[in-house]
Amino acid sequence: MSNGEGEGRPLVLVSNDDGPESPGLRALLEALNDGRVDVTFIVPEGPRSSSGMSLTFHKPLRAWEREISGVRGYVVSGSPADCVMLGRLRLLDRTPCAVASGINIGDNTGLQDIYASGTVAAALQAALLGIPSSAFSMMVERDGIMAGEREMLEGFAEASRYAAEATRWICEHGLPEGVHLLNVNFPLRIAEPATVELTRPVRRKYENNVVERMDPRGFPYYWVWGRRLGGYSEGTDAWAVYTRGAVSVTPLNIDLASPGSPGMDDLRARLESVGRAKD
Amino acid sequence: MSNGEGEGRPLVLVSNDDGPESPGLRALLEALNDGRVDVTFIVPEGPRSSSGMSLTFHKPLRAWEREISGVRGYVVSGSPADCVMLGRLRLLDRTPCAVASGINIGDNTGLQDIYASGTVAAALQAALLGIPSSAFSMMVERDGIMAGEREMLEGFAEASRYAAEATRWICEHGLPEGVHLLNVNFPLRIAEPATVELTRPVRRKYENNVVERMDPRGFPYYWVWGRRLGGYSEGTDAWAVYTRGAVSVTPLNIDLASPGSPGMDDLRARLESVGRAKD
Repeated sequence: MSNGEGEGRPLVLVSNDDGPESPGLRALLEALNDGRVDVTFIVPEGPRSSSGMSLTFHKPLRAWEREISGVRGYVVSGSPADCVMLGRLRLLDRTPCAVASGINIGDNTGLQDIYASGTVAAALQAALLGIPSSAFSMMVERDGIMAGEREMLEGFAEASRYAAEATRWICEHGLPEGVHLLNVNFPLRIAEPATVELTRPVRRKYENNVVERMDPRGFPYYWVWGRRLGGYSEGTDAWAVYTRGAVSVTPLNIDLASPGSPGMDDLRARLESVGRAKD
Repeated sequence: MSNGEGEGRPLVLVSNDDGPESPGLRALLEALNDGRVDVTFIVPEGPRSSSGMSLTFHKPLRAWEREISGVRGYVVSGSPADCVMLGRLRLLDRTPCAVASGINIGDNTGLQDIYASGTVAAALQAALLGIPSSAFSMMVERDGIMAGEREMLEGFAEASRYAAEATRWICEHGLPEGVHLLNVNFPLRIAEPATVELTRPVRRKYENNVVERMDPRGFPYYWVWGRRLGGYSEGTDAWAVYTRGAVSVTPLNIDLASPGSPGMDDLRARLESVGRAKD
């Protein structure tokens, strides 16, 4: 799959977790497809929000060709991470210079969103495969009310100009040492004059909650949800987007390693005694 | 849900991604249920391997009471992370001193497994909720062949002694500064004399691959899989389990933050020029 273009040009792979009908996908494809890079997409066949880094090993995947905004690509019967895996290892004729995921309908600021987000997972899967990547997501609410279609489309059009520029930059430079992917979030409307903040993920963006209801037969069911908190610390992604109206660029490192700690040696000694207790 | 025990005793919540029939779950419940702590479980109603940190926001969840090995708990119609969320926020009468996830059928060493694993996701969701947690997983193959039932049950029985001790240690001490969860992996049979290694996650444990086949109607379908590599660096989780036959304890930090980098300032300048280009 080379989108009919020359082999010499770098290829950008676009994915998302909202599926092929997302206006955020369309805006991102249109902004990227300006003749400077080849563009293709591989996205889930339908919405896969909050699918995390799920992968499909227990059943096979299907892929169908599709054209969106003049760009040829595929829809796949799996998760966002499946899409990237299938693209890199089978459907594409060359390794993309970058994977761009999004633009997601709703921001993905804070660790709670980052870990559960399918949009971020597509970028994370790319990083695990050694491809520099970014996840792009946009706030779609104002004071808790979903934005109207026109405001949302204007927001996606504006955000996609930044997303395309960030992706071209990655194709030119790669990502700096110690940075494996970028998590980029946009406010619904970028405050003037536009600022770009380099941020870190906030730890707690929501207070999680579970609501219990009764079905018509008298049996309980449960809704998981989260009430958004405020008062985000300066320098965090949620602060940049919610408080500053800025574009938030969060460089992420996927290594998860914790620095050594004396407390861990105590646990190690305790566990080694389990082995000795058997003798 | 207090399992009928006194309110004074600390409560351990067990989860997994293999569902209620897993022999690894049974072994862990039996080892923990020794009268020193209260124990309960909340697990997915069926296998949810490779479900990552998926969460169910778009439909409600169901929970059913169930007893396994004399321990009362719940099975839930959602993901491992849903189980922990539902437990902490609704089904349990107090905050657990620790969440113990597993013991998974198959090890979860290396970043590729860690990010996709439902077992690790349950522990990660606990960490996001502020509960110290561990994921426990055991190799179940020898030279690429699945172990027999007897060897597997012996392995789970032995591994669960370590898992229970680690969980009791967490309930006594919490986790050290900068450590949010432990990812613990066991070989099928722990080498004698038993050693416990404090490790970091290996980056690349598998070479991922996609196989294309044709269905009887002549349409392609795809299998995602990974061929396990070898030659793991000393100090990594896969090295400990596969090369040393040791118990691997990997302290994980979930913050994902990347240290600042001069290269990022260049991107920031490029993106700020996008805003100015509009004027």
